[in-house]
Amino acid sequence: MSKIGSANPQLIQALESTEKGNSMFEKQIRQMPLPVIKDFVEGGGIVPAHFSTSTETLPPSKDGAAVSAGFPNLYPVTGNSVLQSTTTERPKTSGKRVAVLFSGGPAAGGHNVLVGLKKVLGTQNILLGIKNGPKGLLEGTMFEITEKALETIVNTGGFDFLGSDRTKIKTSEQFNQVKTVCHDQKIDALVVVGGDDSNTNAAVLAEYLFKNVHSDGRGVQVLGVPKTIDGDLQVESLLPISFGFDTATKTYAEMVGNILQDTPSSRKYWHFIKLMGRSASHVALEVALQTKPAVTFVSEEIENRKYSLSHIVDIICRSVARRAGKGINHGVVIIPEGLIEFIPEMKQLITELNEVMAHSEKMLSETHDVGEKKNFIYGKISAESAKLMASLPDEFENMLLLDRDSHGNLQVSQIPTEKLLIEMATTRLHEMKTDPKPFFGQAEGQIDLNPEEVARFVKSKFSTNNHFFGYEGRCGAPSRFDAAYCVNLGITAGSLVLSGKTGYMAAITSLDKGGKALALPLTGLINVERRHGKDEMVIEKALVKIDSPAFMFFQACRDRWSREDCFASPGPRQLWGPVASQMPMTVALNQGYAGLNFDLAADVKLV
Amino acid sequence: MSKIGSANPQLIQALESTEKGNSMFEKQIRQMPLPVIKDFVEGGGIVPAHFSTSTETLPPSKDGAAVSAGFPNLYPVTGNSVLQSTTTERPKTSGKRVAVLFSGGPAAGGHNVLVGLKKVLGTQNILLGIKNGPKGLLEGTMFEITEKALETIVNTGGFDFLGSDRTKIKTSEQFNQVKTVCHDQKIDALVVVGGDDSNTNAAVLAEYLFKNVHSDGRGVQVLGVPKTIDGDLQVESLLPISFGFDTATKTYAEMVGNILQDTPSSRKYWHFIKLMGRSASHVALEVALQTKPAVTFVSEEIENRKYSLSHIVDIICRSVARRAGKGINHGVVIIPEGLIEFIPEMKQLITELNEVMAHSEKMLSETHDVGEKKNFIYGKISAESAKLMASLPDEFENMLLLDRDSHGNLQVSQIPTEKLLIEMATTRLHEMKTDPKPFFGQAEGQIDLNPEEVARFVKSKFSTNNHFFGYEGRCGAPSRFDAAYCVNLGITAGSLVLSGKTGYMAAITSLDKGGKALALPLTGLINVERRHGKDEMVIEKALVKIDSPAFMFFQACRDRWSREDCFASPGPRQLWGPVASQMPMTVALNQGYAGLNFDLAADVKLV
Repeated sequence: MSKIGSANPQLIQALESTEKGNSMFEKQIRQMPLPVIKDFVEGGGIVPAHFSTSTETLPPSKDGAAVSAGFPNLYPVTGNSVLQSTTTERPKTSGKRVAVLFSGGPAAGGHNVLVGLKKVLGTQNILLGIKNGPKGLLEGTMFEITEKALETIVNTGGFDFLGSDRTKIKTSEQFNQVKTVCHDQKIDALVVVGGDDSNTNAAVLAEYLFKNVHSDGRGVQVLGVPKTIDGDLQVESLLPISFGFDTATKTYAEMVGNILQDTPSSRKYWHFIKLMGRSASHVALEVALQTKPAVTFVSEEIENRKYSLSHIVDIICRSVARRAGKGINHGVVIIPEGLIEFIPEMKQLITELNEVMAHSEKMLSETHDVGEKKNFIYGKISAESAKLMASLPDEFENMLLLDRDSHGNLQVSQIPTEKLLIEMATTRLHEMKTDPKPFFGQAEGQIDLNPEEVARFVKSKFSTNNHFFGYEGRCGAPSRFDAAYCVNLGITAGSLVLSGKTGYMAAITSLDKGGKALALPLTGLINVERRHGKDEMVIEKALVKIDSPAFMFFQACRDRWSREDCFASPGPRQLWGPVASQMPMTVALNQGYAGLNFDLAADVKLV
Repeated sequence: MSKIGSANPQLIQALESTEKGNSMFEKQIRQMPLPVIKDFVEGGGIVPAHFSTSTETLPPSKDGAAVSAGFPNLYPVTGNSVLQSTTTERPKTSGKRVAVLFSGGPAAGGHNVLVGLKKVLGTQNILLGIKNGPKGLLEGTMFEITEKALETIVNTGGFDFLGSDRTKIKTSEQFNQVKTVCHDQKIDALVVVGGDDSNTNAAVLAEYLFKNVHSDGRGVQVLGVPKTIDGDLQVESLLPISFGFDTATKTYAEMVGNILQDTPSSRKYWHFIKLMGRSASHVALEVALQTKPAVTFVSEEIENRKYSLSHIVDIICRSVARRAGKGINHGVVIIPEGLIEFIPEMKQLITELNEVMAHSEKMLSETHDVGEKKNFIYGKISAESAKLMASLPDEFENMLLLDRDSHGNLQVSQIPTEKLLIEMATTRLHEMKTDPKPFFGQAEGQIDLNPEEVARFVKSKFSTNNHFFGYEGRCGAPSRFDAAYCVNLGITAGSLVLSGKTGYMAAITSLDKGGKALALPLTGLINVERRHGKDEMVIEKALVKIDSPAFMFFQACRDRWSREDCFASPGPRQLWGPVASQMPMTVALNQGYAGLNFDLAADVKLV
């Protein structure tokens, strides 16, 4: 570039060199060595381990018979025995062609799974990258991943090196297509990097491709790698967490921490923050533990304790009133993305509405008068549901009644829960200020403020802001935890390939003590679930358990957090320095670890 | 806390200890030593320097006569000569009572200004913190800041230790109140930490309190410290930047970088991201240089080059079309908060509308028919403005016509520019796809795609998301740059107090070469500006100059960035490790530095 005014040419040159993923940060993280479990390290290099039966098994499936019948090839071999790495001998396999794909939304660390795979497969096997997820698998678009490419992608965020996609492989036509692609491209093994649905898909593929794909009767091995920022693919002590969760929650926790720090500085806002994470509230719970905001909702608790929408609004208003009584006119409310569907009465209402819509589609599409439509619908639903719907702010009532997707179903995820709660809390607080008497006092259900505090609350203002953090957390550069975890997951998946296994998902445990590589049999994870009106064999989403240590710890703290500022700022995630090695708090709590720092043995320079 | 299920009690205890600003991160950053300019260091401790006239002066004000008349006490003493630190002798002042306040929105590093002040004032002077900004000054609410308190606040984000406020001290009654407070509480010096308006206020206070506050005829010294995340308080080579800008832009740049990294992974979204920063586009420009998105608007350029709203939409659609032609159906558009007001035709329209509203308030408030109201207003504005307004999507037309604040003025900042541009771009792209012929080709103004690319564009989808990043960036823990910069600004302000100066703003230059502490005379920064229909003496906001090296560099790169993915992810800001010492790119470019790393001499352990 020619001279730019009085800018220093040396700086111009340095800045120009940062384009296309070459920021100073990106250049540095590519150089970062990562810890590798000692079973996979020999002479400073990465080597595969064998996997053999451990003493651990998955809890027996309640649908064992159905699963056994559904997976006649796979089940007798994998069942529910967990495998563990051993180093008594190492696989000497060569000549395998292994294809890997990303499935679903991106999660930080995906590229490092590729790095781990490539390193362990070595030069004597070939690693192919399938472009654009399951869709690319059906089309057979793949390319060889070279050692050189790893230098670019190691430790970087995103799934862009391969791309991803949400295609579900379901029909027998699609399965045949995969078989043909594997046959034609001489694929020996498939590695599916994805969430619960994608790993269910991996199980079905493992069964379908078990044998007779190639002319000599061989099948194609299929292995899964647990990915999802939502954290809802986890198996108690056998799979502490899916990858991507740590980076996403650290990203959101920084933002939430910053906003919390803003509240007592500007002293005038309640911030309502919705966090991505689909149905499960793992993300909300982790961010709450990191930052300690005034109010955090955990959908699973709301469902379990059958909270009404009104009770949820009440929880917010109690915190607002108690704080205002002390002169604290600010706070933060954390809302998990899937909240609405976990409120039993809302779930009931939505089900009834979907039913009405489905049965009266024609009539409703021919009625153009909104009032008439409303009357019709109100006449068709239960009294409780009608009451609930009438209690909603107009905008949301209309949304429930009118905004449908092409199948006539309500798009629940489109409902801005954070705005709904703001509106309802505003109305309730106004009532509480207009006539405080019934709300305050020492009686059951009343809020325990003294008259002076009530007066302070009545005079206080309730100003709000709302936020939704989602995309920001999926593609950032992986935290050190995710970066290291993913390399080891990749090595584990690669070792399983070289050990000749099929139908397993890679897992790492003992994250605080050097790491232990496991393989979980996919058939052992599968249950029968009712979906879209029929039984399907799926890996169930792991929701937050309200008897888990992480939830119980949160529960023990939250009353204090709701009454006054107890917040902390976890800061931006650090790749270097004294706090770079932390794992998620929920993971450390639920696994019974003594500290937050992860330890996966020896640092290895990867590229 | 009693035992929590199977959680490790040691971990429970560690997590409990993180409440109230004690995350592992916060505990560590408090220990972080910071570099201090060598003029302020002696025997490993911090000492004040004298300030005396340098060879530098501020450019002569165009309103010199008015300023001289408006500041009869201050101007003859401070004029426009810049002071510089010297160490030939050091101030031995003791017994001073110095009060400091934060004014306006929070910015990262404010607490470190207090640390710098306290360290340099030492035990022989007293530092008082004024609670809740200018309001607290009027009320006289202040407390002594102890050495012990510094241990808690050093290197932390937020203004919460003192609180802040936006009260403007304007009336003679208010000035008298300040005088009385200073007299009664025996204040010798006031330090005002704030933006352009607050430093204007500091100048007026310095003049008003110049003498005769105390019974012996002494006045009160007033010093300013340049704060604002917007970056619009800067003075060419004499004040490279205000504090807080670096942390805010690093925070936003991480989020934008993450979203950019998401785009080629999920391959389906254009993200429109509005960034806080008020009128000036410094924040947008810095974030653009850090991340290299497809489209970034700089308000100052739009005003300078008289772009129409339609042209702005055209810039977006060109990038969308060119990328879609290559199969890239994603991108990021950065929009500065103040954009709307910088589009000349929009500014004209808004002015006309405000005029009509002001003159026909009664008539409009009595008309309840929206159509009638619209007709009335359309009849009163110019043909150009009417045409522009009619071209807006309905929702925005209504917003312009109907949503007014209590003074009848349009609340421009409430207009969701990012959504307006999405709607208009969607409409335009639809036109371009319906009848591509006039839009593509080699003629002047046409987009240079070949027929195959045009066909690919016509088939492409345009899905969008929108974001607004604001509060997240104001209160995070300061970057190393802001942390160090603020300590040195605080030491500079404290040294000025001990040197007996009044009416100056602290500044640091030579940020890449050990740092140089300066004092800029506030009178030299003041100009006469027309505000609310009358002349006011104010420090003008420093807007982005389109002949500045930073803008010119951006301009030289942006066509490339708009055509294909050139983005980089700067990552989360690092407090440790190889990229922790970077300053803003715009600062390094505009100051002619050779690199991005700042250097403020020797690291000193502060608390």
